[in-house]
Amino acid sequence: MHYFCIKFAQVQKKHYLCRVIRINMATSNGKTEISTLGEFGLIRHLTEGIKPVQPSTLKGVGDDAAVMDFGDKQVLMTTDLLLEGIHFNLEYVPLKHLGYKAAVVNFSDIYAMMATPTQITVSLGISKRFSVEDIEELYAGIRLACERYGVDLVGGDTSASMTGLTISITCLGTANKDEIVYRNGAKEHNLICVTGNLGTAYMGLQLLERERLVAQSLNPNGDTPAEALRFEGKEYLLERQLKPEARRDIIEKLREAGIKPTAMMDISDGLSSELMHICNQSNCGCSIYEDKLPIDYQAAVLAEEMNLNIVTCALNGGEDYELLFTCDINDYEKLVPIDDIYIIGHITKPDYGTVLVGRNGEEMMLQAQGWQAFNS
Amino acid sequence: MHYFCIKFAQVQKKHYLCRVIRINMATSNGKTEISTLGEFGLIRHLTEGIKPVQPSTLKGVGDDAAVMDFGDKQVLMTTDLLLEGIHFNLEYVPLKHLGYKAAVVNFSDIYAMMATPTQITVSLGISKRFSVEDIEELYAGIRLACERYGVDLVGGDTSASMTGLTISITCLGTANKDEIVYRNGAKEHNLICVTGNLGTAYMGLQLLERERLVAQSLNPNGDTPAEALRFEGKEYLLERQLKPEARRDIIEKLREAGIKPTAMMDISDGLSSELMHICNQSNCGCSIYEDKLPIDYQAAVLAEEMNLNIVTCALNGGEDYELLFTCDINDYEKLVPIDDIYIIGHITKPDYGTVLVGRNGEEMMLQAQGWQAFNS
Repeated sequence: MHYFCIKFAQVQKKHYLCRVIRINMATSNGKTEISTLGEFGLIRHLTEGIKPVQPSTLKGVGDDAAVMDFGDKQVLMTTDLLLEGIHFNLEYVPLKHLGYKAAVVNFSDIYAMMATPTQITVSLGISKRFSVEDIEELYAGIRLACERYGVDLVGGDTSASMTGLTISITCLGTANKDEIVYRNGAKEHNLICVTGNLGTAYMGLQLLERERLVAQSLNPNGDTPAEALRFEGKEYLLERQLKPEARRDIIEKLREAGIKPTAMMDISDGLSSELMHICNQSNCGCSIYEDKLPIDYQAAVLAEEMNLNIVTCALNGGEDYELLFTCDINDYEKLVPIDDIYIIGHITKPDYGTVLVGRNGEEMMLQAQGWQAFNS
Repeated sequence: MHYFCIKFAQVQKKHYLCRVIRINMATSNGKTEISTLGEFGLIRHLTEGIKPVQPSTLKGVGDDAAVMDFGDKQVLMTTDLLLEGIHFNLEYVPLKHLGYKAAVVNFSDIYAMMATPTQITVSLGISKRFSVEDIEELYAGIRLACERYGVDLVGGDTSASMTGLTISITCLGTANKDEIVYRNGAKEHNLICVTGNLGTAYMGLQLLERERLVAQSLNPNGDTPAEALRFEGKEYLLERQLKPEARRDIIEKLREAGIKPTAMMDISDGLSSELMHICNQSNCGCSIYEDKLPIDYQAAVLAEEMNLNIVTCALNGGEDYELLFTCDINDYEKLVPIDDIYIIGHITKPDYGTVLVGRNGEEMMLQAQGWQAFNS
């Protein structure tokens, strides 16, 4: 494909020099494939050297949300883009659940900074395949999430699309000054905590994918009897994949208990990846213990059935939307009474690296897999 | 295509009833095509009955931007989604220009409420066709726009996409209390003003499209000599389409002159459509005069060449990103000295409708075309 490049050189008051240059985009001559950088590398590369100029910008690129100071309250902003075929498969994701999840994952980013989500905007790109009723379903999920979390839907953009469904949601939140928790405050000897359980959303996805393939093989050309699908006893896995919740409850309990984590983020790309973000940004290392990782029994059973290593799923599965945080060891007594928080390790000196201690005491370095869709 | 619907009915503490229901999305049985509602109808339909619950939400859906009150300043938020093949064609839109425009159209929405853009987030969906260098070009445009307008890029999301390029930008802005201008304040006898000229961006698009087709016909299978493209003397049209600017200058001049418009918005979908928004939301009618519409001479010449009616282009062309505003007739003396503002008519009683008075004195009702991509 060709395109014409019109140069950005101003030659007179209102006119720009238009020099038509042909660039052949099809040849990869001198071009770098995005997969060589990966998602995080690409973002780092693109945002290098950006320096805020607005006095209201407190924190730009590099955390769960940006932070602005507009007066009494600090204001947070986060955004998520979901693309059909990349982030969701409508063969098994109902539109209402998709809407709900698209909103909740943004709320999760705001809670992960110890703040409260307050407003969202929703942009949709919709191909001709979708009817008004389909989009109503999607919106019903978004609106339900807003109701449950007390967030206002304040605007957005709706457009036709050439192919598939695109959902872009941006969320604002607020926090009192000095309440916000960033990723860069972890200190040596801090406890490392996670909430809920890990790898379950990933196992839910494996289950859906397996049943989809079974259904397809039973009837390759059309309707599949619903009875052919075997979700009994595994509903929780589906729920974790299709309808995750943000951990508002944990944020409230931490606040009630008077605990301010030293660093925090939500687990969207997998525990390993998120731990490495905290360690990089806090300039520290960590040790976590395999036998302390909270694993759901349904997830463990399915992993066994499917011949997967549940610990690998817990470390790299992603989409759990649980919280990962570090806190001072003096908060231990206050932490223990809070349900659904698990201490999985502690922060170390930076040169110790990010270490997983196995059940047999063997130490392994963690690998961040993150979002590798650019490779696939 | 089929999908499975898992019901949103909570049956026990952590589990949800999963009832698998087959829905055939391919049949249009009982389904409504989105084109029957159009973009504005769909948004109205989806956002019906949404009531803000956050005390900080001052204005939700329905203006150029949402408005929040977080303390000293009021905070505005707007968002735009750009999809390849719908909003841009990379055969003739250079990526740097695309990035610049994607940012500027958001700034324009914030200025159109008499506020100042302060921060943006940028989400990109990128298919394998694009290299790191391509995305650098796109980002260079976004960053240039941010520099020129003093806006901070504070975050975003980057993802692989199955097809094409998706750009979603959300912009925050601030304004002092009582400075914000909404769409709903126009009053009978108010002057109707526009800035710059109208229909020029649309003629720029026609020019690019014509030259693309010419180039294709000269060499259907490959390289087209750049010399084959005839943009000489029409650079301004290209600039208006490829690299629009937001009218910060006008906002500053209105402020300096002590003029607070009664209603304002930017012209992205075309004058007719925007006038109808202001009249609907302000519960009024309007009369505008054909001979008062500001038309650029290059646009008029090209329209003549291409056998298009330039007035229709000015009314319905879209993408001008000029300002449309109404103000008190007492501001007339203050308005006149400001360059590049044109008084095109006045606000009337609601039952007069939205009227265009032709050169011959004949009155026509305006038609809002808006964004009709759902029909194409």
